[in-house]
Amino acid sequence: MKEPRRIAIGSGETESLVWIGAGLLSCVERYLVSSSGRFLLVTCAGARQPAQRIRAALSGRILADIEIDDREEQKTLAAVSHIADAALEAGARRDDALVAVGGGVVCDVAGFAAAILLRGIVWNAVPTTTGAMADAAIGGKTGVDHAAGKNLLGAFHPPRAVVIDPEAAATLPDRDFRAGLVEAFKAAWIADGGLAKRAEDAIEGILRREEPPLADLLAGSAGIKAAIVSEDLKEEDRRRLLNFGHTLGHAFEAAGGYRQLRHGEAVAWGIAASLEISRERAGFREEEALRIRRVLRLLGPFAEPVRDPKALAPYLSRDKKGSSRGIAGVVLEAIGRARIDEAIPLEEWLEAASRVRL
Amino acid sequence: MKEPRRIAIGSGETESLVWIGAGLLSCVERYLVSSSGRFLLVTCAGARQPAQRIRAALSGRILADIEIDDREEQKTLAAVSHIADAALEAGARRDDALVAVGGGVVCDVAGFAAAILLRGIVWNAVPTTTGAMADAAIGGKTGVDHAAGKNLLGAFHPPRAVVIDPEAAATLPDRDFRAGLVEAFKAAWIADGGLAKRAEDAIEGILRREEPPLADLLAGSAGIKAAIVSEDLKEEDRRRLLNFGHTLGHAFEAAGGYRQLRHGEAVAWGIAASLEISRERAGFREEEALRIRRVLRLLGPFAEPVRDPKALAPYLSRDKKGSSRGIAGVVLEAIGRARIDEAIPLEEWLEAASRVRL
Repeated sequence: MKEPRRIAIGSGETESLVWIGAGLLSCVERYLVSSSGRFLLVTCAGARQPAQRIRAALSGRILADIEIDDREEQKTLAAVSHIADAALEAGARRDDALVAVGGGVVCDVAGFAAAILLRGIVWNAVPTTTGAMADAAIGGKTGVDHAAGKNLLGAFHPPRAVVIDPEAAATLPDRDFRAGLVEAFKAAWIADGGLAKRAEDAIEGILRREEPPLADLLAGSAGIKAAIVSEDLKEEDRRRLLNFGHTLGHAFEAAGGYRQLRHGEAVAWGIAASLEISRERAGFREEEALRIRRVLRLLGPFAEPVRDPKALAPYLSRDKKGSSRGIAGVVLEAIGRARIDEAIPLEEWLEAASRVRL
Repeated sequence: MKEPRRIAIGSGETESLVWIGAGLLSCVERYLVSSSGRFLLVTCAGARQPAQRIRAALSGRILADIEIDDREEQKTLAAVSHIADAALEAGARRDDALVAVGGGVVCDVAGFAAAILLRGIVWNAVPTTTGAMADAAIGGKTGVDHAAGKNLLGAFHPPRAVVIDPEAAATLPDRDFRAGLVEAFKAAWIADGGLAKRAEDAIEGILRREEPPLADLLAGSAGIKAAIVSEDLKEEDRRRLLNFGHTLGHAFEAAGGYRQLRHGEAVAWGIAASLEISRERAGFREEEALRIRRVLRLLGPFAEPVRDPKALAPYLSRDKKGSSRGIAGVVLEAIGRARIDEAIPLEEWLEAASRVRL
């Protein structure tokens, strides 16, 4: 195996080390952190193969082995409670650590459980979906959904280690594989025009899961997220760029009851709608919009989103990125360069949502 | 009104300002912090009078008015969820703030809700019990109980402002008033021999709720807690001194199913038992132990604790202050001077528990 790429985020108690490399799963025990040497394993049905490799690697050191349901509608405080119950019944202590093996839901829920267990224990993330590799496992945002919207309850609690091995996504169903890549492309589009171009050019190979271009995109996007988060842990400024496509994306997802669209698919629609807003507000060129739409079409097809302004408006108004002043949004100036627009009127979001096409 | 005493804890985003003074409730709006100017009010049946004064002071700026059950057995994740539901249904945003008005349970539960709402909103504490004034409202530990033990789920999330007005405890039932004073005396015993002596000498007046000696004790103990916490936000070292009496106290409380003893009463038994351990391990003098026992007797009578080693051991073994190495405890060297003993064997705790008398 090649030497893995190593990215450090933050410092001190909140330092995360992100390790990226094909084949890392075979020596995962080198990278996972636990003061006591003991682990609480949290995984899901879709991640049974990588979970089995981690069980073997941590043999005899797993205090509790917890499988959770990783569907978005199960991303609830009840799931956090279930993990906490199992951990405490197994006698978890402050110096034990948790390992989450799965996609975004598992990382978000298990990370949140680690945040509140004994007022915070160390955790590690081993993402097994393209979406979690590119996005969810990195950066310390953990949490669960609420009837009023997505991710409304949670904590900033960065994993101490994140081990990203593209092989862990080998058995991922195609729809999830594609939806997760939306987040990977998103990272390139906001911050790295070169990576975006390489990945666009190699998209057929990426969709066939060919290792060199897939690893390039996943490592590149994880690196972008890690670099941005490292500058800005608490989402005061640059980190908000990562929300590109997410303001409307979350509204599409919520208005569809979290069943109709995968997170990445909803974000794809959110990105497509943001291209309109970007043209109006940031002079984003149509020629580059066409390139992005082409990629999104190839990652699809995606089910149609709810476009009804009455259905979307309540979710937009409740967006965490909204202050009493208005709803901030991310606009592209060019592929690889994004900025925040602090107060985009609700009507403009709704208009873009009603017109969006891929 | 005299100028209130002001103590700053921590800095930056986690700064708490603790305000202490008789009569502060009449101008509480000067001290409560909210960026948006809007508040989520969380209170309980026992705090109706002070809550009513706060409603009047914040008239028209209360987004949600939430009453919770403040019995220890209701200090659960479900109560946190209830607050979160009400807050999110009312459209709470990141720049809104929460105000908790009540005793330790209300502060712990509401503070934890603030910690996880939208990944953390600002909160303020207006303690209305002697226990919360001396202890629970200060220092940023928030959380709820679990079947496996007390405060096993939670977060460090300091309130931005703590407003301590001894008048807020005016309608507190006598048993709660007395139990809460255990925490106030505890603070004096571990850190301020002078305050301990003054309060011991004035204990009859304090029990009659005479303002000067009561305010002296409550302000003194709040100041001790604030000063210790300020040095040591995350309980690495000095902060652990505040756990004096709590290792066994929590076990007594849990073994009694949280019904038989109030928190302060269980801590009183825990303190009494720790006097034995302190004599053995830190040369604590019998003459000073007699002074402490006298105060505890006057604050009582307290129901007998569960002493059965089999019943207590599981709770001690799960103590958060336990690492894989053993159970740390606080011992007194003299009244006003305490230290940590890093590894007191389980048997020694159980022996002290079985023998403790007041």
